[in-house]
Amino acid sequence: MKKTLIALAVLSNVAYADEGMWMPQQLPQVAKQLKAAGLKLDPAALTKLTEFPMGAIVSLGGCSASFVSPQGLVATNHHCIYGSVAHNSTPSNDLLANGFLAKSIDEELPASPGSRIFVTKEVSNVSTQVINAEAAKLTGKKRIDAIEKNEKALVAACEKDAGHRCTVASYYGGLEFYLIKQLEIRDVRLVHAPAAGVGKFGGDTDNWMWPRHTGDYGFYRAYVSKDGKSADFSKDNIPYVPKHFLKLAKDGLKEGDFAMVLGYPGRTNRHRLPSEVAYTFDWSYPAFVKASGESLAIIARETRDNPDTTLKYASRVASINNYYKNRQGMLNSYADSDFLARKTKEHTELKAWVNATPSRTGEYAKDIAQIEQLIAQRDAQYKRDFFLNSSSPSMLSTARNLYRLAKESDKADVERKAGYQLRDLPRIKGRLDGIERSYDAKVDKALALHSLTQYAAQSTPNRDANFDAALGIKDGMSAADLKNLLDTLYAGSKLGDQAIRSAWMGKSSSEFEASQDSFIKAAVAMYEGGLKREAQDEELDGNIQQAYANYMKAKIAFMNSKGQAVYPDANSTLRVTFGKVAGRDNGADGTSWTAFTTLKGIAAKATGTGDFKAPAAQLAAIKAKDYGNYVDPILKAVPVNYLATLDITGGNSGSAAVNAKGEFIGLAFDGTLDSIISDWDFNKANTRTILVDLRYMLWEMKYVDKADKLLKEIGAE
Amino acid sequence: MKKTLIALAVLSNVAYADEGMWMPQQLPQVAKQLKAAGLKLDPAALTKLTEFPMGAIVSLGGCSASFVSPQGLVATNHHCIYGSVAHNSTPSNDLLANGFLAKSIDEELPASPGSRIFVTKEVSNVSTQVINAEAAKLTGKKRIDAIEKNEKALVAACEKDAGHRCTVASYYGGLEFYLIKQLEIRDVRLVHAPAAGVGKFGGDTDNWMWPRHTGDYGFYRAYVSKDGKSADFSKDNIPYVPKHFLKLAKDGLKEGDFAMVLGYPGRTNRHRLPSEVAYTFDWSYPAFVKASGESLAIIARETRDNPDTTLKYASRVASINNYYKNRQGMLNSYADSDFLARKTKEHTELKAWVNATPSRTGEYAKDIAQIEQLIAQRDAQYKRDFFLNSSSPSMLSTARNLYRLAKESDKADVERKAGYQLRDLPRIKGRLDGIERSYDAKVDKALALHSLTQYAAQSTPNRDANFDAALGIKDGMSAADLKNLLDTLYAGSKLGDQAIRSAWMGKSSSEFEASQDSFIKAAVAMYEGGLKREAQDEELDGNIQQAYANYMKAKIAFMNSKGQAVYPDANSTLRVTFGKVAGRDNGADGTSWTAFTTLKGIAAKATGTGDFKAPAAQLAAIKAKDYGNYVDPILKAVPVNYLATLDITGGNSGSAAVNAKGEFIGLAFDGTLDSIISDWDFNKANTRTILVDLRYMLWEMKYVDKADKLLKEIGAE
Repeated sequence: MKKTLIALAVLSNVAYADEGMWMPQQLPQVAKQLKAAGLKLDPAALTKLTEFPMGAIVSLGGCSASFVSPQGLVATNHHCIYGSVAHNSTPSNDLLANGFLAKSIDEELPASPGSRIFVTKEVSNVSTQVINAEAAKLTGKKRIDAIEKNEKALVAACEKDAGHRCTVASYYGGLEFYLIKQLEIRDVRLVHAPAAGVGKFGGDTDNWMWPRHTGDYGFYRAYVSKDGKSADFSKDNIPYVPKHFLKLAKDGLKEGDFAMVLGYPGRTNRHRLPSEVAYTFDWSYPAFVKASGESLAIIARETRDNPDTTLKYASRVASINNYYKNRQGMLNSYADSDFLARKTKEHTELKAWVNATPSRTGEYAKDIAQIEQLIAQRDAQYKRDFFLNSSSPSMLSTARNLYRLAKESDKADVERKAGYQLRDLPRIKGRLDGIERSYDAKVDKALALHSLTQYAAQSTPNRDANFDAALGIKDGMSAADLKNLLDTLYAGSKLGDQAIRSAWMGKSSSEFEASQDSFIKAAVAMYEGGLKREAQDEELDGNIQQAYANYMKAKIAFMNSKGQAVYPDANSTLRVTFGKVAGRDNGADGTSWTAFTTLKGIAAKATGTGDFKAPAAQLAAIKAKDYGNYVDPILKAVPVNYLATLDITGGNSGSAAVNAKGEFIGLAFDGTLDSIISDWDFNKANTRTILVDLRYMLWEMKYVDKADKLLKEIGAE
Repeated sequence: MKKTLIALAVLSNVAYADEGMWMPQQLPQVAKQLKAAGLKLDPAALTKLTEFPMGAIVSLGGCSASFVSPQGLVATNHHCIYGSVAHNSTPSNDLLANGFLAKSIDEELPASPGSRIFVTKEVSNVSTQVINAEAAKLTGKKRIDAIEKNEKALVAACEKDAGHRCTVASYYGGLEFYLIKQLEIRDVRLVHAPAAGVGKFGGDTDNWMWPRHTGDYGFYRAYVSKDGKSADFSKDNIPYVPKHFLKLAKDGLKEGDFAMVLGYPGRTNRHRLPSEVAYTFDWSYPAFVKASGESLAIIARETRDNPDTTLKYASRVASINNYYKNRQGMLNSYADSDFLARKTKEHTELKAWVNATPSRTGEYAKDIAQIEQLIAQRDAQYKRDFFLNSSSPSMLSTARNLYRLAKESDKADVERKAGYQLRDLPRIKGRLDGIERSYDAKVDKALALHSLTQYAAQSTPNRDANFDAALGIKDGMSAADLKNLLDTLYAGSKLGDQAIRSAWMGKSSSEFEASQDSFIKAAVAMYEGGLKREAQDEELDGNIQQAYANYMKAKIAFMNSKGQAVYPDANSTLRVTFGKVAGRDNGADGTSWTAFTTLKGIAAKATGTGDFKAPAAQLAAIKAKDYGNYVDPILKAVPVNYLATLDITGGNSGSAAVNAKGEFIGLAFDGTLDSIISDWDFNKANTRTILVDLRYMLWEMKYVDKADKLLKEIGAE
């Protein structure tokens, strides 16, 4: 693989400085663009993960964050610490609504269970160890098994260093693999969150929208044992001292300034095949959007007038709404675009290039033909199983996971299926404990019944015989039959009870097999069939991995031949995107977008109702024009959010933005609805990242939340 | 007066080309600016009211319009013909919702009763005839009586030319007077209105807003008798042949293009005293906004679940909403401005200039001091009578008007009070007939009671003894007492009945005096006191006219001394404003405004609910991209609305916009909320007029409404 990277180093014809989620080690390849964009740091310095500034960048698992003080203070988005604020809220002390500020270090509160801060220590290319000589010879399930075995061995060796979490991440569709070693900080504490009327200002209404006025920031602190090791929560723990932390920018940002975002983007799909694009946009997303709308209606109906279940499903509703809006936004963009035609043309050109020489034909042609066929096969399965996947009652899925855990636990740890090893137990336990806060049998049953009715209406070959047999589903069952069937299943299980459910973790497989609990019985009944299905899937996966990797290899070679560098699709690993602060010509019809919003816009939007409940203290400070040093000389107001030509996606939430000198200038937290199709098809004209301006954070902390001590700690005063 | 105008002709230091509602005869004074802005016509040509293009511009009384075909076709706003569309709508044939298109001239429908098209024939300066030597010597009521006598004589002489309506309009606060002679076309017919989902798209939500997507256009046709005279509706009438009509622009409009709007702006207040500004913004508008909110709540409560009364009050609700939003918008702008301070400074400078020479002091100082005192006196009266004015039941007001008409009818026509002469009878009759469509006793009583309760709580000296005596209002009456009082009054009157009410028009004063109808009795009881009050008001008015005119004379002289031309405040007479098509840097926080909206924005806004019900045929045409020749080469879409730096106000609705060659480019229909304070204080950065783009009108007519014949008539095909 090193060969490829060295080859890339001489390339410079990158389409756009703004597009690209670059692996830190790739940055010297785009050094010229970085310099041209205004970076004052040495691009080579950005490749050193344990040096400044990369050493300050951390992951929360799903969100990004960064150290901003020498005492382990971590800045991230409000929506990334939301669960921890909620966890510490009570009806009489509603931290979500009112915000939270630890006045001293003693007042800092434990984050929600399972909260982690991951500090990346090492990233090493393990491609030839994952696909070693032995694995390379294998196909299908045997190949997947070999890869899993190699990965598990790498992870086990790495995790011998206690307190660390190691992962093997796949890049370029399985062409390359990197072993990532991270310090796993387990004692995470909540330091400060602004009121929901600041941190969530605009709510779902403004989600994915501009103009935006959300103070989407908050602070955690990382704690370790006295000897500096990762440790569970203890009052004896002390703040973690990071090797590096970000310092605040001294100069205010303005339109045109260089900006760089460092974080952990989750998933993009820029290297997909035309058939994957067609499947996704013509079938999968529309089906998802339809089902999401139906789920939202069912949850609304079933939780109406019940504050308890409304609260339990609030997070799920927010999540469905988020994806619903996201996917619909992508579909709207897709409908107006020639994306599939371009994708098809590019793929045709790739194949023509491959077929142009016998050596390239020999190396790639078979796998390219193969991958198209395999993907078609996989997509057909996805379509077939669409309703099946949402028809399983939650407690059936839970029972199946618990029974699988019991079965895997009969084996030596190294032999266990990935995800069921000793190292996975705390997370399994955490998920199990978490069910109580988000599960209600009545709502769950209504959702399952809705899917099941559509599933059961499919013809027998399109259904899953294993699932049908275990649940007793037969051809021609009426809606009433299915309802009775679910009623009986739910009535026959005690897994809805938190204590009973938890007690099943750690029980032996024979105890499961002796149980009369309806869902456990069904889980046991489905076990063998499930394994068979898994083996079939893995057979396909193995073949896909092999062919896809070679297709990507051909694509990289083809793009390199045209002088284009290639960054891998996002995969939740550390990436760098750079660009500039910039508005946009095309806003909503009849408008364009300026680069910044200001406090004035908060006052204008603050109706005091729904998503727009700005705190009274904030509105008073705005009215009094208490702007202090945070007023922008051009805007003549305090900036709140800003737009930049940066390439981010989900997972980048909470990512630090830094200026040309590597100084902290705010936090990325969102993109805009008409550009989220960039996850598939980067659109330079439309794509903007939305960030919280550092000056808004500081202004709010000083003039509204009076967080003077914290301001001092981060060097603002 | 001519002296002043000649003096102005050499001035050129007009502050802004965009500010100014110029009288056509003033345009040569700003010829340099007109040329610089891009006008291709000779500015002198614009002074000729019966030549092109001014000859094509007409008034609908409250709205502006223009001839756009040689067969008397008149283009104006949808909201200006709204009443006529509603008048012809039935539940089974809802023209408002579906739109209306006369397929041939025979299908054209009579406009709502009282609809008029006024074609200006002559404007002459009658200042020295209105304030003749005799009137100039008089003060107080005697002065007002003399002015009214002179005006009535001028009007009577002018109206000897049958079919014409003549008016004396006051300019510069009573400093100048012009006699305006207009052909009054009484047979007005509805030709075409787009569906409400086009003509009212955006409704109250978008009212005063940008971005905007309203197809606010429609067509009337003027009809006259076979010999070309003004005539009442008759099937024998023929289309009026205007001497001039506007021709459609051939080239599409683009940002930066010259634009000019010709129409009849209603009222502005740019020459007001500082005390008038303070009274309006610190007291009058806030009181109005509060009362409007209360009225809306009462109407909503009283009409709930009653489609009949809901419909009757729909127009009133729309009107209250419109002013409510307008006044609140002005108050918001005022709160953020230094308007009063600037106004005060300007006035102080004026006084210093006056006091700088003995001759100026002698000419102006006394009247300036006087006007400040008189305005303070008038404003105190307004405050005192605020609740009184809305406490009168509608049928009491109607009874008072009818009884006054009977009393005036006892006199020779020339002696009658202006407004009660023979020439006024048709309009009085029209208003009387119109009550039925907008009156419901239950709603009316609830509104009256709400005001009366607040009125009655005022101390005796702040109440009106005449009103109190006639209605039986006494100190210390409870809300219940007042309700009983109103119940008795409403129960004791039959004026709520359309036939009975109408029958009172034309009855003798003695018949009124013998009536036992409660409201007529009260009206008779209030008559003498009312006359006394009127005389007191006229005494004040006469003194104000005298002092205000001289204050304005001083102000004009002062501004001329600084090289500034002065246009008079709007007074519903023909004016010209010119500027250019232009977006705006400052939109909502985080946005700027582009100059045009497009069909794309309609599709984006069209939720199908509330104010955003675009017709299916329109959405289908947008989806199919049936743009025809109307696509803009820069926007790559059909433009819908656009912004221009023009100076308009209420009354300008329906005004034709023309390009540098005098060709029709659309219709003015609105301003934007944050710039409507320009009625008082012109703000160059913010003020934009919103217009319908001609291309949208044509596109909609061709691709949605299939108005091919009409398109041919206006020369579009």
